[in-house]
Amino acid sequence: MFEFTLEASSSAARSGRLALPHGTIETPCFMPVGTQGTVRALSPNDLRMAGATLVLANTYHLHVRPGEDVVAQLGGLHRFMAWDRPLLTDSGGFQVFSLAGFRRVSDDGVEFQSHLDGARRFLTPERATEIQWTLGADVAMAFDHVIPGVADEKTARDALERTLQWLERCAKRHQELRRSGGQADGAAVTERQSACPPVRQTLWPILQGGTHLTLRGEGLRRILEMGSWSGLAMGGLSVGEPKPAMYEMLATLEPRLPPALPRYLMGVGFPADLVAAVERGMDLFDCVAPTRNGRNGTAFTPDGPVNIRNAAYREDARPLDETCDCEACTTFSRGYLRHLFQAEELLGLRLLSLHNVRYLIRLAGEMRGAIRDGSFAGWADSWRHRYLQPDLA
Amino acid sequence: MFEFTLEASSSAARSGRLALPHGTIETPCFMPVGTQGTVRALSPNDLRMAGATLVLANTYHLHVRPGEDVVAQLGGLHRFMAWDRPLLTDSGGFQVFSLAGFRRVSDDGVEFQSHLDGARRFLTPERATEIQWTLGADVAMAFDHVIPGVADEKTARDALERTLQWLERCAKRHQELRRSGGQADGAAVTERQSACPPVRQTLWPILQGGTHLTLRGEGLRRILEMGSWSGLAMGGLSVGEPKPAMYEMLATLEPRLPPALPRYLMGVGFPADLVAAVERGMDLFDCVAPTRNGRNGTAFTPDGPVNIRNAAYREDARPLDETCDCEACTTFSRGYLRHLFQAEELLGLRLLSLHNVRYLIRLAGEMRGAIRDGSFAGWADSWRHRYLQPDLA
Repeated sequence: MFEFTLEASSSAARSGRLALPHGTIETPCFMPVGTQGTVRALSPNDLRMAGATLVLANTYHLHVRPGEDVVAQLGGLHRFMAWDRPLLTDSGGFQVFSLAGFRRVSDDGVEFQSHLDGARRFLTPERATEIQWTLGADVAMAFDHVIPGVADEKTARDALERTLQWLERCAKRHQELRRSGGQADGAAVTERQSACPPVRQTLWPILQGGTHLTLRGEGLRRILEMGSWSGLAMGGLSVGEPKPAMYEMLATLEPRLPPALPRYLMGVGFPADLVAAVERGMDLFDCVAPTRNGRNGTAFTPDGPVNIRNAAYREDARPLDETCDCEACTTFSRGYLRHLFQAEELLGLRLLSLHNVRYLIRLAGEMRGAIRDGSFAGWADSWRHRYLQPDLA
Repeated sequence: MFEFTLEASSSAARSGRLALPHGTIETPCFMPVGTQGTVRALSPNDLRMAGATLVLANTYHLHVRPGEDVVAQLGGLHRFMAWDRPLLTDSGGFQVFSLAGFRRVSDDGVEFQSHLDGARRFLTPERATEIQWTLGADVAMAFDHVIPGVADEKTARDALERTLQWLERCAKRHQELRRSGGQADGAAVTERQSACPPVRQTLWPILQGGTHLTLRGEGLRRILEMGSWSGLAMGGLSVGEPKPAMYEMLATLEPRLPPALPRYLMGVGFPADLVAAVERGMDLFDCVAPTRNGRNGTAFTPDGPVNIRNAAYREDARPLDETCDCEACTTFSRGYLRHLFQAEELLGLRLLSLHNVRYLIRLAGEMRGAIRDGSFAGWADSWRHRYLQPDLA
């Protein structure tokens, strides 16, 4: 379990298989984001039809509402959101630093104010690990100290050191929970074991270090020395730093990453970022871009983004994306989809979200195919030529 | 085509079959409302899974946005909204009188201000008929003058007379369109005939007369004298008058309605109204109640309405309605559905809308079954006992 099998590579780009308790996923893999235990506007059936194999949910959000105790009482996160395929939970670190109205960081943890009701809450590496254990996703993430992408070296070093100390504590608590067979908080959990059987779960470290290569290198070395992991996440990227800085960071680090670990680039991405990151050896991705953009009326297509509100589509009988097999593209015209957005109809939000998720999942699938048949470099050039052209024209 | 076959009856309650160009529907039948060419929050697949056979769309809304010319250019209303089963369009009369910011009624028609952009528009019986012909629904409705349910006899007589005059003009224009083979406005339509073939469509009259039995009786007599119709709608009910007044109106009129015509009670209803109306001989119904209530978090169940936001459902693992086979009830717990509403997630709006539509369609199906096997009176008593009990307790 949790074994990653590398099947093919083409320069740095890789394709492989990751075995998780709720199923095996193929990489490169894009995971839709179900922030509050639901991928916005989509049902589990929609996600299956879009070909999703792995979905992310947010520990911070589920902790503040409805609370992990409620999720456990309702059978754990898989049962709660009716998703029987693999799940990954983010640790809450990112949200504590991006959403909370107030926060006080100490070496022990983070005191913060809930963005919902202003209540003071305290998250530690141990609590974040326990919450994720209670939720029961296949993959849990270590609790990290996230800083802005443009942070100076001193700030970045401070956050890196704290994240490394927290990682040790997360790993220790996770180990204890695995040994105890699932009792995160005593009797209450024991009682509900029949409804919520102990889930085998793995914990992945998150590499921080901002845009400072020395820090990233040191962080990587210390993470790998700390234990034997089943995966590795790159955090603190795609958080406001210039795109070239992120690409450089990935390209420089890649040769030093153990090939046997799946590499999860957090918070990426948009189509062109996904391709660039796969070229630089990344395997797993999550981002709200497909659903958020979909709700704004922007659809990804092979010829670049399309804003469906554009008056040009008023009487356009063509599908959104002629190459796509999703419900939006096989059932409706651009003219109808535009009407749904003009009329502020909920179905429009859903159809464009569905299309964008399907688009990124198909994009990951195309990359898998190209890597496996050895044509990835040429594929990536053609893809970029077609996708970026409209923006350059 | 458009023939109604009465299959069974039990006192006034009836069950039959209505043949329409896009399929045969069984009555009693509840039709979900797709105001703007989409049943809010639901896709055509959702509607098929909910068992919908007939869907209503609003002429007024589609005329002001996107415009019937756009719908025709995109292949007509069926193709536009990707609904291949029967469609009925309301004439726009109701919306002109309920939504427009300004209106001036003359015998010729109604000048009104669009609720969207304030633009002045003019609808006449002829225009309403042409627009519906262009949209291409299976059933078109005559353009009527709708008044509040509590209007006095003088106002009601005035509106009835105008509605009867307008009906003659609608029928005349509809006849011309049928004879001309689909050319509503000349060359433009001819050009797109290949994309939008002439649809066989029928036109139904709407009986007005407020809560004044004499007027209703007179209106009915004059409508039946005017021609041979394939259906008959009861308008101007469920528009603010007391419930008992509506029930009395239906019970008194029912023996005078020709058995061979399907009877469409417009704008009804809530579950208890649906049962009461079927008891009084009505066959077809439309209402936004299931979707509007669903979006507010209220679900119809055999034990009465449930508000899913209620804190009592926080950890409730039971389905919303144990007797229901819809996606919401077979997939999710009440606790999860409550969470979706608490978290303001779009999936909640969709799931409760889907359940409520399915509920009314199943309710109509149960009534069909009970009428056909002769148990309707007992069925209705048991149903009411269970459904109304929580409200009485």
